Order: sequence, then structure tokens, then C-alpha cells
Amino acid sequence: MKRRTFLTSVPAGVTLSLAGAAGRAEAAPAFPEVYREAAAKLIGTALTDEGGWKKLEYLCDRIGHRLAGSAALERAIAWAATEMRREGLENVHVQPVKVPHWVRGEEWARLVAPVEAPISMLGLGGSVATPPDGITAEVVAVSSFEELEALGADKVRGRIVLYNAPWQGYGRSVQYRFSGAVRAAKLGAVASLVRSVTPLSLRDPHTGAMQYDPAVPQIPHAAISVEDALRIGRLIEAGSTVRVQLKMAAQTLPDADSGNVIGELTGRERPEEVVVLGGHIDSWDVGQGAQDDGCGVVACWQAVALMKQLGLVPRRTVRLVFWTDEEHTGAGAAAYRKWVGDAIKSHVAAIEMDGGSEHPVGFGCSIAGAPDEVLNRALQRARQIGRLLEGIGAGEITKGGGGADIGPLMRDGVPGFGHRTVGQHYFDWHHSEADTLDKVDPRDFRLNVAALAVLAYVLADMPERVDA
Amino acid sequence: MKRRTFLTSVPAGVTLSLAGAAGRAEAAPAFPEVYREAAAKLIGTALTDEGGWKKLEYLCDRIGHRLAGSAALERAIAWAATEMRREGLENVHVQPVKVPHWVRGEEWARLVAPVEAPISMLGLGGSVATPPDGITAEVVAVSSFEELEALGADKVRGRIVLYNAPWQGYGRSVQYRFSGAVRAAKLGAVASLVRSVTPLSLRDPHTGAMQYDPAVPQIPHAAISVEDALRIGRLIEAGSTVRVQLKMAAQTLPDADSGNVIGELTGRERPEEVVVLGGHIDSWDVGQGAQDDGCGVVACWQAVALMKQLGLVPRRTVRLVFWTDEEHTGAGAAAYRKWVGDAIKSHVAAIEMDGGSEHPVGFGCSIAGAPDEVLNRALQRARQIGRLLEGIGAGEITKGGGGADIGPLMRDGVPGFGHRTVGQHYFDWHHSEADTLDKVDPRDFRLNVAALAVLAYVLADMPERVDA
Repeated sequence: MKRRTFLTSVPAGVTLSLAGAAGRAEAAPAFPEVYREAAAKLIGTALTDEGGWKKLEYLCDRIGHRLAGSAALERAIAWAATEMRREGLENVHVQPVKVPHWVRGEEWARLVAPVEAPISMLGLGGSVATPPDGITAEVVAVSSFEELEALGADKVRGRIVLYNAPWQGYGRSVQYRFSGAVRAAKLGAVASLVRSVTPLSLRDPHTGAMQYDPAVPQIPHAAISVEDALRIGRLIEAGSTVRVQLKMAAQTLPDADSGNVIGELTGRERPEEVVVLGGHIDSWDVGQGAQDDGCGVVACWQAVALMKQLGLVPRRTVRLVFWTDEEHTGAGAAAYRKWVGDAIKSHVAAIEMDGGSEHPVGFGCSIAGAPDEVLNRALQRARQIGRLLEGIGAGEITKGGGGADIGPLMRDGVPGFGHRTVGQHYFDWHHSEADTLDKVDPRDFRLNVAALAVLAYVLADMPERVDA
Repeated sequence: MKRRTFLTSVPAGVTLSLAGAAGRAEAAPAFPEVYREAAAKLIGTALTDEGGWKKLEYLCDRIGHRLAGSAALERAIAWAATEMRREGLENVHVQPVKVPHWVRGEEWARLVAPVEAPISMLGLGGSVATPPDGITAEVVAVSSFEELEALGADKVRGRIVLYNAPWQGYGRSVQYRFSGAVRAAKLGAVASLVRSVTPLSLRDPHTGAMQYDPAVPQIPHAAISVEDALRIGRLIEAGSTVRVQLKMAAQTLPDADSGNVIGELTGRERPEEVVVLGGHIDSWDVGQGAQDDGCGVVACWQAVALMKQLGLVPRRTVRLVFWTDEEHTGAGAAAYRKWVGDAIKSHVAAIEMDGGSEHPVGFGCSIAGAPDEVLNRALQRARQIGRLLEGIGAGEITKGGGGADIGPLMRDGVPGFGHRTVGQHYFDWHHSEADTLDKVDPRDFRLNVAALAVLAYVLADMPERVDA
């Protein structure tokens, strides 16, 4: 561990005026040392704060899961806006967004041959229903799209395809959940099942988003538990013809009214320039949406609330956004981008937390289309900010990163910062009934608030833009 | 790691006749070295065997869970007896046992105040039903019987008691599941709930046995997931009145016909002396009963099957027993003890595996009522046998150990050996939907077969009884 020299140009006992310090660059300590005192205040306050945890507890225990289109999501949005106003955030409003309204309905699946047994399942978000009596068909199991293609239409037609792929990390494994129905339907399958996308299972299925293709018939698509997928795989491997009955009564209703919640801390010098940070207020319709993404929205919220509480008003505006409908179609992120319009030029940075609240390690940074020298300079500046977070182990700035909700901003060149954690357990809980408050460690949560607060504050206050 | 000298008194290349070797104690290598070759054969065969795993796969995937009273249990019993006969085990028979017949029926629980939300639950085995509309009442949460008593009848009467006790190891935590209904009913509670007895949860409840007291009203008793218990605890802690609706349609039907499956390898010199080994063939009515105790019965079975296969017929009889109804009332173990009668004097040792098939570490040994010198001599002999299992890490012989099914034998003085593993995950899966074949590591399973085979073979073959 390297040790660094602190504030050597300022005599002991002298407290810098932060506002002034940045303005008198000649006399003041170099960046990022000028922000060490503000960082200390933010970190110390975050690590002793109870307000953030109380909000997260309220969201999880009193509101619970909140899928796009649900009354619970709208309660969460109204509650957040009310609380932001009560805390004194500025320009608090709910930006209207039309969101999809998919309702799960009754659903179940059963092994019917070679033995009868219930299957633990969750339909995937947006799936069509089965006929009222369900679909009963033989199962063909594959562990990749290549295996599916190799089987060909003759062996797939009229059957249920099971994607029984082992966990290979979310990015690789999620393709069967997302595109599995289309790929199976192209070959004539009547339904498709996916082994839940998770490294750990106690017979609990994990839902999530899926896609249809207008050119391909829509077939029902559901996740089953890892255990049930493995059992079906073993039965087939042992030579049995496996038949499954799948029943889903899912419906897609007309789009519903929802909204992005926005609140601000108006910049003291350049209020038109904005650092946006946030996460998504919606969740899947299981568990409590605690790790995905209750902790993300509340940690961002509390980061801004603590700046307000400490009177640390940065040069630029810090804008807190709770995007709606990240999980299903990203309607909130698209609506926000549209609303921003040309003002995107004054979006200085976008920070997203949507990977859970395990111990933070830092942020991943990208600037789409930036020349290498601009990106490298931005990374260098961000790493200087990261030095202020080294003491809590959250200062690592890596190249590459972003998030689904800041994606539309980043595609138009806004520097994006994706919050990163140790990521040891997030996918154990993700999109399942097990995504509940008890999975969030209150100490890790506070560290995440601290990391977000310091990054957002400094990005919003530093004299030059991070990508200057 | 100590290295030991092997068989120094026998020239290289000389293969001992095991039957003869033990008889010519003067000329042959000392105990346990005389058994090293047999141990090598058993271990080598166990570690390359596929038959044991195939049986376990059949039991789990083709039969599944098998609660006392169920058709599945009787299918498992019939299958096991048929297969034992086919393999050439002797005196194979099913010893009739009457077992309780509890049927879960429809069941569910819901938070109804301060918010509405489903609760993940499993009724406990033997619980009475609720009225048809369920029971709706305020919940009082306690973390111990002391807290319950401190509340007193005034605060418990008419309410649902939730035992929200943290995991403190199975032995301590299980008391709330086992005795919780009686303790709550004594104070006038209308139902009781217990936080599932497990160190790991993904919103999955764990069932198990419970007890009523004829002198105390019988109230419904159910396990809820750790997550739901914690949520209720937090809501109460935050000052809310929590109300839960509990619905259970459980029934206790007339006792059913079941049986213990028995098969033998008849001893070549003292067939009337018996080393008994086994586990329980029943399970709870969830998951596949893979770890509890499918792996135990099949590992014991395969240990005997491998002796048979290798022609290693010991001096005494090795008796394999699959006890029925361990989980609910222990009817199988009681029936076996009764059947043994006075012949218990010729029960040389009893070995039980019922702690799952993680990596074996050894066996715990007890002899009820034995003078210290007898126990110490037996432990010393067992530790010598343990030396033959050091190479697979399964040779640790500890003082104290046994099991529910060999308990009635041990209480009458039969030396008992309880199989032991590293025990890292067993209670993660125990009595839940997650107790499925995928939780059993095939390599660990084979090591357990090897450890059981060597211990049973040597105990059955050594010239003196282990407790002589």
C-alpha cells in the first residue's frame, strides 16, 4: 500500500474554504487535495448516517417489489418525490413516462413424464400466456444456441426447448433468457424454458426481461430453478422422454402511467451544468427489489441528501434521478434522454448504481467517441478523485463502465461512471424472491453512499469538466 | 503430516489372505495393518464405482421425496428390496412398521398489516390445520423461550407467536420448531411460526418435526422463510402492529403400512454376530431427500454391495437397514429394536449415516453405560481402523456420536458410530425444496461409501469385538 503526502502546502489547523480554494488554484493545494476535507465530511457523515437505511427499509418493507405498471411502483415514486421535497431538494418533480404493463397471472409447471413432480418456475417478463390448459410437450435440452441449431427444426418442432446452460457469468448466461424464445420459436418450438441465470440456487427461480421478434411466432418463455433444469437434463441423459406441462396466464395490458423522479441540488456557480446520478426505482415483481435496485436509488439519494445536510453545494447542479422501468423496456431512461434534448451538452457526468450494495471498490468510466487523450485525461482526473476514496477501499477507477439508465446519455458522449462493488453475491439474489433487505449489509450500504457522494460532489465542483 | 510404515513384516509382493491373516495373529502384521489390503480394495473400488451414484440418482429423480405414509416411500422401499435381492444380498426382507400419515394439504400465509404481502412458508410435520378461512391475528415476535415467558399470557393470548431466533446451530435453533407450538399454546397463542432453522436462505422455508403435548391445546405451527421472519421482526421493531393470515389444511390420517428394508452379507464365522449399518429411507415431503437421507442409505448400501462384489465376506454378519419414518416419529428405529429383542447382545456395532454427504472426516463413537476403560479401548481400536481412512481424510474417530435410528440400540449398550462430514452446507438444504441431487458432490459421495465400507468391514471382521 502506497502512502501519499497530504496537503503539504497548507499549515496545520488551517481550514480551507472549499469554494474559494478551487478558485485560487495558485495558492491552494493541488487537485484532489483541495477536496480532502469535503470528502472527509461526506464519508464521516455517510458512515454514521441512519437516514439512508431508514429509507431503504421503508421502500423494501412497506412498499416491496414494484414492477412497471404496478400500483406499488407508483406508490414508491410518489413517496420518493414527497420525501425529496421534505428534505429540501430543489426542482423535485415526476417526469411522466408511459411504461409497459405486464402482469404475471397464475403460472406453474410440472414434470408429467417420466415422473410427476412440480417444477419451481417464474415466467419471464413480457412472455405471452399459454392456452388455458397449458402446453404439454416433450422437452429437448440444449446448453447453447449452437446445440439448438445442431438439433434443427425436425427435433425442435412441437417441443419445449430447455436452455440448460451452466452459469458462465451474467453477460454470457443471460442470452438464453433474453433471446431464447425467439431462437426456439424459429425452429418451431411451442415454448421455451431457461435454467435460472444465477450461480447459487436453493430451488428459487430468477425472472427477468426477454425479447420477441415481430417476424417470429411468440411462444411462452419461463425460467425454472437450476435444480429442476438439472433434473430434467439428467432424466434426458438417462434416456427418458421428458414431458412438461407449462401453464402461464400472463397478460400485457395497455401501457401505464409512471415517471422518473427528479430532484436537484442547484449548482452555486454553473447551475445549468449537471452531474446526474441515480438508479432505477422499478423492480421485478418478486422479492423486495432490495439489491436491484432499491439500494442503488437510495444510496444515490442519500449521497445528495448528505451534501445538502452538510451545506456542501457544488459549483454545478447535482441531479438525482430515479429512472422508471429499467427492468422491462428502459422507458424511463429513454424518456429522460428525450427530455434533456440539447441540454445534454451541459451534462458533465452521469453516475449509475445498479449492481447491488456489496462492498464498493470504485467506478468504471467510459466516454463514448472521445479521443484517447480525452478519455485518458478524464481517467487520470477520476483516479485523483479515487484517491479520496482509497481509505474506504472504494477508489479504483477502471476503464469501461456505465449502466442501462445512463446508457442513452453516454451514447451521446456524456462521461459515464458505473458504480462497482466486489460483486460476490449479487446474482445469487437478482430477480428472485430472495432479493430482500436482509441481503443488504448496512455497513456496505453506507460505504456506497460515501463513495457516490464524494465522486458526485467532486465531479460537480471541480473547476474543469472531467472530460475537458 | 505423519508418515506411517506399511506392512513391514510381509515381504514385497506377498498378498495376504485376509481370512487367514486374522486367524494367524502371531505371524501376521499387527492390527490394523492386516486390513490395509482389504481397505485398499474397498477404497479403490468405491472411488471408481458408478453403481452407487446410479442408485442415488434413481431414488432422487425417479422417486423423489418420500414422507412416511406416502406412496413414494413405499415405492422406494419396494425398489430397494428388489435391487438388494438382485445384487445377491441375503435375507432381504421388509420388516413391517406402522407409520404416521400426515398430509400437508393446501397452505399459505400472508402479511395483512401493515402491508399486504405473501409469506413463504411450510407447515411443520404433524401440525393441525387452521379453520377453513385460516387464522388472522396480530404477531408477537420473540427470539427465545425466555422472551416468550417474559411477555406472559396477557400479551400472547389470541396472538400468533413468531420465534424469530437467529441460527445458532441446529441443536439450539431446532427447539423453537420442535417445542414452539406447545410453549406458545400454553400462553394462549392461536398459532405459532418459526424462522426456518437454517444458516442460509434464498426465501426458502424448511420444514421438520414438531411436538404437541396432550395437556396443551394443539395450535397450527409453521416454518416461514428467514427473510419473512426478519421482515416481520423489522416491522414490529419499527412500531407497527403486524397481522398475519395463516391457512393450513393439514390432516393426520390413520397410521399407514411401511417397513424397514433389511439385507445382509452373512458372516463367514460368526453369522449370529451383527454389525448393523444404515440410514433412513423416508424424507420430508419437499425436495428429493437427497442429502437427508438418500445419500446415507445409498452410501451404506453401496458399502455392503462393494464388499459382496469384491468377495470380502467378513467374520460377522453385516446388516444393512433402511429405517422408515425417521423424520416424523422414529417408528422404524423403534420397530427394529423391538424385533432385535435379546439378540441385541450379538449386535457388535451400529453405524448410521444421516448428516449428509459432504466430505467425510470420520466417525463419532459412543458406548452407553460402558466403563471408561472399555470405551477408551474401543476408541483406540476404532482409531486404528481410522488409520486406514487417513489417506482419504476420513479417519478421525471422536468420542461421542450416534444417530436417531441407531439410538434405541445404543441405549442398550451397542457401540454406536455416527458418520461425520465437514458439515459446511448440510443445513442450507435440510428439509427444504433445495435438498436435491445436485447438492451431492459425486466425489464426496464415493468417499463416504469408502469410509463406511472400511469401518463396517473391519468391525465385522476383527477377531475381538470393538468393545471387548
